[in-house]
Amino acid sequence: MSEKTTTAKIKLSVADLDFEKQGGLLPVVAQDVSTGAVLMMAYANQEAVQKTQESGFAHYWSRSRGALWKKGESSGHLQKIVEVLVDCDQDTLLYRVHQSGVACHTGRPTCFFQELTIKIKDK
Amino acid sequence: MSEKTTTAKIKLSVADLDFEKQGGLLPVVAQDVSTGAVLMMAYANQEAVQKTQESGFAHYWSRSRGALWKKGESSGHLQKIVEVLVDCDQDTLLYRVHQSGVACHTGRPTCFFQELTIKIKDK
Repeated sequence: MSEKTTTAKIKLSVADLDFEKQGGLLPVVAQDVSTGAVLMMAYANQEAVQKTQESGFAHYWSRSRGALWKKGESSGHLQKIVEVLVDCDQDTLLYRVHQSGVACHTGRPTCFFQELTIKIKDK
Repeated sequence: MSEKTTTAKIKLSVADLDFEKQGGLLPVVAQDVSTGAVLMMAYANQEAVQKTQESGFAHYWSRSRGALWKKGESSGHLQKIVEVLVDCDQDTLLYRVHQSGVACHTGRPTCFFQELTIKIKDK
């Protein structure tokens, strides 16, 4: 993949993550490693991150249901983890995955299927 | 780009975005269109989204400074907008950009330069 660097990444453990900043949750971006597409954005608590580490499949925390959520558990649209990247502030994760089926509950490959109109003003 | 679909995307305006869910802010993922790399995650309020639409450069809301933030205004590391995508819930944005210089304040190309250790347990 063209976006990969050749330098080894710094390795972190769950204890290094800053869950405090957002009340126990980290925002998580999921990206398909095959296409580079950004698939979705969701949240994970510590348990979800640990389940992701241990199972090799993406887990999140559903804020609406107040429950641990294994992505694709009912639909079969699992996200197999290739790597979990951590940002510079250690408060955001990037799940790099192989997506089975589609990521979006609407049946589309990615949740980002709508576009905001851009209206650049002349100066 | 391989992640692009051939179907036209649904067009939305700022009025369609759900700013209420997170107290006036939307999470924003920034992605480099040239490499596919996920660069950073930040937040935007309505003014930041409108400035992004009107100027063609990525604007965010800095939660730490409590201020509108034009990315790269002091460093020169601007993000020129190619398109702004909206997710299915209309509460998350994806800025697809041409990144000048580097995205991360550490000098690295992307903020996601660290990796969480994965320890898949045998069943």
